[in-house]
Amino acid sequence: MKIDIASKISSGVSRVKAYTPGEQPDTSDWVKLNTNEFPFPPSPKVKEAIMAEIGDDGASLRLYPNPESSKLREAIAKHFGVSREYAFAANGSDDILNLAIRAFCDKSKTVVTLEPSYSLYPVLAKLQDTELLSIPFNADMSIPFEKINNSGANIFFFVNPNAPTGIGFGEEVVRKIVENFNGIVLVDEAYSPFAGWSAAKLVEEYNNLIVTGTSSKGWGLAGMRIGWGLANPMVLEVLDRVRDSYNLDRLAQVAGVAALNDNAYYAEKLQLVLQERENIERYFDSLGWRYFKSSANFVLFTPKTKDGKEGVDVAKSLFEHLRKNKILLRYFPNEASINMSIRLSIGTQEQMLKFVDATNQWINL
Amino acid sequence: MKIDIASKISSGVSRVKAYTPGEQPDTSDWVKLNTNEFPFPPSPKVKEAIMAEIGDDGASLRLYPNPESSKLREAIAKHFGVSREYAFAANGSDDILNLAIRAFCDKSKTVVTLEPSYSLYPVLAKLQDTELLSIPFNADMSIPFEKINNSGANIFFFVNPNAPTGIGFGEEVVRKIVENFNGIVLVDEAYSPFAGWSAAKLVEEYNNLIVTGTSSKGWGLAGMRIGWGLANPMVLEVLDRVRDSYNLDRLAQVAGVAALNDNAYYAEKLQLVLQERENIERYFDSLGWRYFKSSANFVLFTPKTKDGKEGVDVAKSLFEHLRKNKILLRYFPNEASINMSIRLSIGTQEQMLKFVDATNQWINL
Repeated sequence: MKIDIASKISSGVSRVKAYTPGEQPDTSDWVKLNTNEFPFPPSPKVKEAIMAEIGDDGASLRLYPNPESSKLREAIAKHFGVSREYAFAANGSDDILNLAIRAFCDKSKTVVTLEPSYSLYPVLAKLQDTELLSIPFNADMSIPFEKINNSGANIFFFVNPNAPTGIGFGEEVVRKIVENFNGIVLVDEAYSPFAGWSAAKLVEEYNNLIVTGTSSKGWGLAGMRIGWGLANPMVLEVLDRVRDSYNLDRLAQVAGVAALNDNAYYAEKLQLVLQERENIERYFDSLGWRYFKSSANFVLFTPKTKDGKEGVDVAKSLFEHLRKNKILLRYFPNEASINMSIRLSIGTQEQMLKFVDATNQWINL
Repeated sequence: MKIDIASKISSGVSRVKAYTPGEQPDTSDWVKLNTNEFPFPPSPKVKEAIMAEIGDDGASLRLYPNPESSKLREAIAKHFGVSREYAFAANGSDDILNLAIRAFCDKSKTVVTLEPSYSLYPVLAKLQDTELLSIPFNADMSIPFEKINNSGANIFFFVNPNAPTGIGFGEEVVRKIVENFNGIVLVDEAYSPFAGWSAAKLVEEYNNLIVTGTSSKGWGLAGMRIGWGLANPMVLEVLDRVRDSYNLDRLAQVAGVAALNDNAYYAEKLQLVLQERENIERYFDSLGWRYFKSSANFVLFTPKTKDGKEGVDVAKSLFEHLRKNKILLRYFPNEASINMSIRLSIGTQEQMLKFVDATNQWINL
């Protein structure tokens, strides 16, 4: 039968466009500073673990993976210092954000977030046909606690450190939110390795807290899709109802365990990233450019022309100049609050020098 | 804050229990015939492809995968002989079933299926808070076409060959369904490699047809979570709105391409599976046991005691006897229409002989 496809689409999905992820160029000749990947390879233990799982002939791959990702959950719990039953694993932390929306939102149970936040949240809300209330940060970029608490929402998506600004909030802020919000608080900690602290341990104190994380940013494993959640076992039981039975393949499970167990390797590499972040902030200072002091592995900055002009056109001009030089950053032309700014992922020293050179060139065009 | 978790759950998820997948024992000393995995390792090309992707130090793993799984979509299209734009890839075919329910079902747009069918469908429907109408097969196990067409449902989930019976339907049946059902027809072809034909090519004729498949059953890659869908590009565009941006990791993408390109390897192994299926059906014939003639890689059979008794207790007794002998089958005690039967995955010759030996022993207990 020839049917009218549009008339068959569910009410949530009919109002949504697909989320547009950052560009992933196919060739390796790019200086790729657009999607906040870790600039170093994963721990050598990751390759070892994958090789061991594959074995001589890949025979283990014919069998379904462990449905609960049990060993990975153990490694997550150990890494964050919580009991085993507080840990959950999924196909990237985006998977957990999606599961949380499905588990805790519907027509009458809504979601609240701050503006700006991770741009995936509104897409997930529409797909679930639920309302997303987006509350702007205060002018000084502090959190409007009362507005959040009075929103009537069932769940609060709080990305910390914030994306796309990079601003980080400390433990007392998270506690203040979790203690006063009458619903689930999901703290999206994709960037917490660069902030130096995690709210993970608080899940043993508060049953309304979910802390999510990912191996994509801090562990050099964006290509493997490994995410985690920490929460009260009663909350995890609800997420388990929604998740796919075999949400993580065998190689992702062993890769995640190997990475989370090699703290020494990542601590060393992390220092290099933090040093480059410091260097690049000093560079923007030297130019007199505005940026948000970052607790993440990226900096959102507002470029200026030589004669001191900022604006959408200015940002676009620098973005395109860099692109022509095969340096890829992330630019959000359609988001009014940040369309004068560009987001720069922190790369290796070599990558940062290339960015600085090309930017200096643009200034003097 | 201490909240009442139950009061926070969304309306769909609050009425659902997690789907229970088949048991996945952790040790390798089991004869595992419970979840219909392919009994042979994947093509040697799979390991090669994974090794090439990992390279010397796993550096490629730090970068996000291709969001569309472009090369895998190409391999899928080529394998099934359709144009590139008709192919879609996901994290196992369960992922696509879930996406299809989200894309095409809501409170007023419902789903219809046959009974019995794959037991995941009712779980996915509840999660989406939509109604699933389950229409029994006719007594002769033929399809009640009129009832399906008059169901008023928006989408029909049709598993072919059927799970858990293994009964296969041919092209004329699929055409008759697709031509007369006023909605989307999803043909779940997890087991089609063992039926010798696929409806995949029909997606170029009918815009209301989705054909799904998986590398888990016919390609020895259950551990890698690689599924596919074939459908009109307008339908795939809707599924793309719902899927996770990076739904397949890098290693799964290259593994899927390598497997789908090695037809020679799989054709040879497939013959061995079909031979064992033939042998085991002859064995059940010799015992005078009932079973459904299978077009899949499993047989649903109804055991009998020496004195000719069938029943729930009899099935349970054999299931447990086999289990004691470390031979694991799938048994559905809570599904009334099939609780006198047990499902046996077709394994290697050696595994089948172990099953026959232990079954003969049980008969003579």
